[in-house]
Amino acid sequence: MSTNVNRRWLLASRPTGLVDKSNFQWVEEPVPTIADGQILVKVLYLSCDPTQRGWIARDTYMPAVKLGEVVRSGGLGRVVATKSADYAEGDLVGGLVGWQDYTVLEGGGMFAPAKVPTNVPIPMAMSTFGLTGLTAYFGLLEIGRPKPGDTVLVSGAAGATGSVVGQIARIKGCRVIGIAGGKEKCDWLVNEAKFDAAIDYKSEDVTERVRALAPKGINIYFDNVGGEQLDIALANLAMHARVVICGAISQYNESSTPPGPKNYMNLLVKRSKMEGFLVSDFMPRAGEAIRELSTWVREGKLKDRVDVVEGLENAPAALRRLFTGENKGKQLVKIAD
Amino acid sequence: MSTNVNRRWLLASRPTGLVDKSNFQWVEEPVPTIADGQILVKVLYLSCDPTQRGWIARDTYMPAVKLGEVVRSGGLGRVVATKSADYAEGDLVGGLVGWQDYTVLEGGGMFAPAKVPTNVPIPMAMSTFGLTGLTAYFGLLEIGRPKPGDTVLVSGAAGATGSVVGQIARIKGCRVIGIAGGKEKCDWLVNEAKFDAAIDYKSEDVTERVRALAPKGINIYFDNVGGEQLDIALANLAMHARVVICGAISQYNESSTPPGPKNYMNLLVKRSKMEGFLVSDFMPRAGEAIRELSTWVREGKLKDRVDVVEGLENAPAALRRLFTGENKGKQLVKIAD
Repeated sequence: MSTNVNRRWLLASRPTGLVDKSNFQWVEEPVPTIADGQILVKVLYLSCDPTQRGWIARDTYMPAVKLGEVVRSGGLGRVVATKSADYAEGDLVGGLVGWQDYTVLEGGGMFAPAKVPTNVPIPMAMSTFGLTGLTAYFGLLEIGRPKPGDTVLVSGAAGATGSVVGQIARIKGCRVIGIAGGKEKCDWLVNEAKFDAAIDYKSEDVTERVRALAPKGINIYFDNVGGEQLDIALANLAMHARVVICGAISQYNESSTPPGPKNYMNLLVKRSKMEGFLVSDFMPRAGEAIRELSTWVREGKLKDRVDVVEGLENAPAALRRLFTGENKGKQLVKIAD
Repeated sequence: MSTNVNRRWLLASRPTGLVDKSNFQWVEEPVPTIADGQILVKVLYLSCDPTQRGWIARDTYMPAVKLGEVVRSGGLGRVVATKSADYAEGDLVGGLVGWQDYTVLEGGGMFAPAKVPTNVPIPMAMSTFGLTGLTAYFGLLEIGRPKPGDTVLVSGAAGATGSVVGQIARIKGCRVIGIAGGKEKCDWLVNEAKFDAAIDYKSEDVTERVRALAPKGINIYFDNVGGEQLDIALANLAMHARVVICGAISQYNESSTPPGPKNYMNLLVKRSKMEGFLVSDFMPRAGEAIRELSTWVREGKLKDRVDVVEGLENAPAALRRLFTGENKGKQLVKIAD
């Protein structure tokens, strides 16, 4: 890879339904040069996140990626040239690196590249200590506000965010039920991540299982999935429940907006609330979260699970795995050593 | 009416669609007698409330009225016989009196009849100072948490709760936009209730008008209506907005659960929350609310609007007016002087 070529995936068309390789165009360009204040980063890993499906489809909380632009993606790389006093050659940094070998970044502002601790393995820096781990941490603790004894239901529970949410809820003294697709994931949740129970939505009746496992209702529902699972959760709320809206991966592939949660009036019956959040609002407190997460990892209370696809050429296929449910934990793409 | 006959409307069938007179059966029975601890109340006024449509259709936050039972209804009456130390003959009391001339009530518990202040006109005791006024007060102040300068959108704004919500929001320094059906109601909102603006959903494009009137988004949406208006509000939230779920009158006549708010993911984009409540949870604080509401009425800051239908025989028609939008303000039925 130490050539002077920058391989890049550009957005060629907006996806309809599942993302497809044909939505992207492979180009090879010269490695860019940097101006004052900028750094050149050689990308090592890409992070695959459900929200990327939104970024390439339409304006969301960020403007949509334009056709012909490099595909926006979180990731991690090494500074190989610097004209910024804030970054030294050799620094590991995380940020919006894009699907490419080399990226030009600069400091300042909300999307400034963040220095990555070098005392944890890179995959863990990108999962538990990365945006997905922080999303779990702040979403559960600040929006869900768990109390010991609460029953917490998590959808997408074997995913990068869901698995951390459930484990933190356990640490906080809650009873945790995860919903995931397939026996392998459900076994991992119960045996490795120590969830109290797991529901396999592919082979089980979710309504029936939620009723059986949470007969007194759910105090916190942490939703990564939307659609039917959100409606089932709303139908099974305990009094004064909190529904944390983190994502809606079941909906992202629809070309028109699907129907919303028909059971939302149960928020009234159960005096409950449904609240959305974005991890970016909590970034000033990332340090505190990472300290606490590190402690739990060290104590063996928090297990990490990453799923690494090799090669930039496989980035489209890796992103697609999130929506087919093939990924086992945090989905990464390794581009270079 | 001072006969020994108790005229009653019993539930004959569960409504499908709009409530209809045929859902109720008129019977005449002897006036009941009372046991120790009970009081006999001669009903003077009935309160018509959208939630009654739910009570006669299915279990909600209260068990459904059974077929053959008297139709459950809030209302107000005078104690005409008492075997309770807590109530004297002649007391005015409010409670779940039912659609009938005479009702037997007893003290204790959440549904104990409440003594009604005699220094305000009865219709005002049943609107601004009744459950609808208290619903507006606690829903807006405790769930919506208005701040001066907030833009507040209210649906069902000319109704019993909505009109009080908007006026309290104005008192709290907010900009208030009401949605109502028809020019007459909209004129009343702006000219009498002093809303900053009103949108006539029957003749105007609500999306266009909300965008024009709240270009920076809505900080609080107080929802009495559900359906399309809820979706329009969700699409136009300001950051950190509060959506207060008070009711969904547009949905109550559907026989199967209609689709939910498809724009709910905007709660995430706008870091906002949607929360339901029931006024009954706040009843221990009713005194404080009534004191503050009285002050505002005395200062001329809070206008009352009631719509009185005469005669117990017209109770079914009066309830129906809520769903056709014919009522102008709080809908009451006067049964006796």
